[in-house]
Amino acid sequence: MALSIRGYAAQSATSPVAPYQFERRDPRPDDVVIDILYCGVCHSDLHQARNEWHGSIYPLVPGHEIVGRVSAVGDKVSTFKVGEMVGVGCMVDSCQHCASCNAGLEPYCENGATWTYNDKDRHDGLPTFGGYSERIVVSDKFVVRISDKLDPKAAAPLLCAGITTWSPLRHWKIGKGSKVAVIGLGGLGHMGLKFAKAMGADVTLFTRTPGKEAEARRLGADHVVLSTDAQQMAASARQFDFILDTVPSPHDLNPYLATLKLNGVLCLVGLLEPIEPPVQAAMVILGRRSISGSAIGGIAETQEMLDFCAEHGIVSDIEVIDIKDINHAYERMLKSDVKYRFVIDIASLKTA
Amino acid sequence: MALSIRGYAAQSATSPVAPYQFERRDPRPDDVVIDILYCGVCHSDLHQARNEWHGSIYPLVPGHEIVGRVSAVGDKVSTFKVGEMVGVGCMVDSCQHCASCNAGLEPYCENGATWTYNDKDRHDGLPTFGGYSERIVVSDKFVVRISDKLDPKAAAPLLCAGITTWSPLRHWKIGKGSKVAVIGLGGLGHMGLKFAKAMGADVTLFTRTPGKEAEARRLGADHVVLSTDAQQMAASARQFDFILDTVPSPHDLNPYLATLKLNGVLCLVGLLEPIEPPVQAAMVILGRRSISGSAIGGIAETQEMLDFCAEHGIVSDIEVIDIKDINHAYERMLKSDVKYRFVIDIASLKTA
Repeated sequence: MALSIRGYAAQSATSPVAPYQFERRDPRPDDVVIDILYCGVCHSDLHQARNEWHGSIYPLVPGHEIVGRVSAVGDKVSTFKVGEMVGVGCMVDSCQHCASCNAGLEPYCENGATWTYNDKDRHDGLPTFGGYSERIVVSDKFVVRISDKLDPKAAAPLLCAGITTWSPLRHWKIGKGSKVAVIGLGGLGHMGLKFAKAMGADVTLFTRTPGKEAEARRLGADHVVLSTDAQQMAASARQFDFILDTVPSPHDLNPYLATLKLNGVLCLVGLLEPIEPPVQAAMVILGRRSISGSAIGGIAETQEMLDFCAEHGIVSDIEVIDIKDINHAYERMLKSDVKYRFVIDIASLKTA
Repeated sequence: MALSIRGYAAQSATSPVAPYQFERRDPRPDDVVIDILYCGVCHSDLHQARNEWHGSIYPLVPGHEIVGRVSAVGDKVSTFKVGEMVGVGCMVDSCQHCASCNAGLEPYCENGATWTYNDKDRHDGLPTFGGYSERIVVSDKFVVRISDKLDPKAAAPLLCAGITTWSPLRHWKIGKGSKVAVIGLGGLGHMGLKFAKAMGADVTLFTRTPGKEAEARRLGADHVVLSTDAQQMAASARQFDFILDTVPSPHDLNPYLATLKLNGVLCLVGLLEPIEPPVQAAMVILGRRSISGSAIGGIAETQEMLDFCAEHGIVSDIEVIDIKDINHAYERMLKSDVKYRFVIDIASLKTA
């Protein structure tokens, strides 16, 4: 007796995201059933709804920044109770036995994590559907707790934009004394500024757009460097220990690499395409610099991040929308017209 | 009363390296005068003699893998005595006060190290001339000690090929339990195999040429992977903690990146050109892998390496040549026809 669910789905690469009725599995012993309250809108929702990364499975219900309340739990679930506020991010399962899973780094699962949507459940083979829907059923290992101190709607983007910036900052041990730069001021970039600042770093925003100084400072930047200004870039030579590069489209890394100190690291978190124009090998050799990357983050560190956010009063800056406006929101995202993340009020599904 | 010196120089980008008489400075108080016995032949000698990196200063006396005996010391030199066997590598000076110099990492000097040849002395502005010559005058801070246990001619390549592979292996903490791969079996690559093995790693050679198994194993490889064989490459997926990439010409990094484990590092030590074809960002993001690079090594770690070599009986595999044969040796280098480093017997200068 599967659960009948109202949601929004793309039926093809060219159709808008629209109302869609579907079923979710009966809860297994380790499952948590969550009544979804809010779901953040990630750029990858749009990419996958429109099959821009290829391999999209239709109907496709996007959404992997999910916050809601537990409405039921399976027999073997002891860590979550009905009524608790919880979150689900980009993954709903992983192999649980490879080196990455054992290290608590499920996005790097050697057998492939199971993604929250546009994937197949590794037990029953049925498609996974995301958070643009009223309810979700998820193994307790992939559910995290959201503190009462956090505004649940503004916490939703922490499940993807938050952990994707948090994880590399933690991995590369950013803290007091670190000099960190963030490239790009979008959903990821604005979280990068907040986290780096809260971790105690001296924080710089690289941006191509003048006039973002006040906004960047409000979000945690100590300095703003206009990356189109050769003089400002030259003055930034050998300044940074770590650069968090949130830009999702191809861009020249060489000018940024020049701003890294000896042993500095440029970490890609937004780009999923070839690195072009080519990096000059001398830029990494003459400075022992690194180009690295980071994918989302593990479940344990997602919980650690959420607890840190509750303690430090950190959430995402959001604009709440009704689900019927999702296609319009996608068009605005394409123009970077959002500060800084759309979040769907899932209550709006009832009237959609 | 400067010292008159016999050597070999390139007079232009198109002229062969040929006999050349020049002067070296009178020793300063911190200088060591070294009677050169052997000088290794590095690929960069050829690049710079022929102005392939541009900016060559002629006449150009190459050579930065220098071993010889101290023949005189300046008034303030207390660390070296006449008669001692010593070495000089790629640098003869640096600013001595930047963060890199303070960290003992002079090749990364923020004010620019002074290179052993094709550079200008930072005190008197005169050109620096390398080790294809009978004598050199060098500040004691840039002279290292060569143990009596080492064959001096086979030790010469340690000053560049040796330290260039040693430094990154040490920096990335290679040791027992590490899985290391070396790309390319030339002057650098054969030292990479020897060092990684002596440090206790499990060592793999990547090569494009079949038939190198026995040779690679003799040099320290536990495994050989033919990089042109898709099946062997696929079987190497996620195997290595560290890849030392010694290839000096552009090559596709993506197939090698796929063989790195989570958090694995590919370190470039041979390439000084653009990284083409482009790296797929997903190759670093989905595995938190890094592309890095390393430049030679500091003076303190060069001494550490030489002491390690004396203790473990490690030297370079060499072919000794007379200096009159240097231009022929360059042609053979271009065909990779050397196992694995030419070393000039500087005594041959007397009859050249």
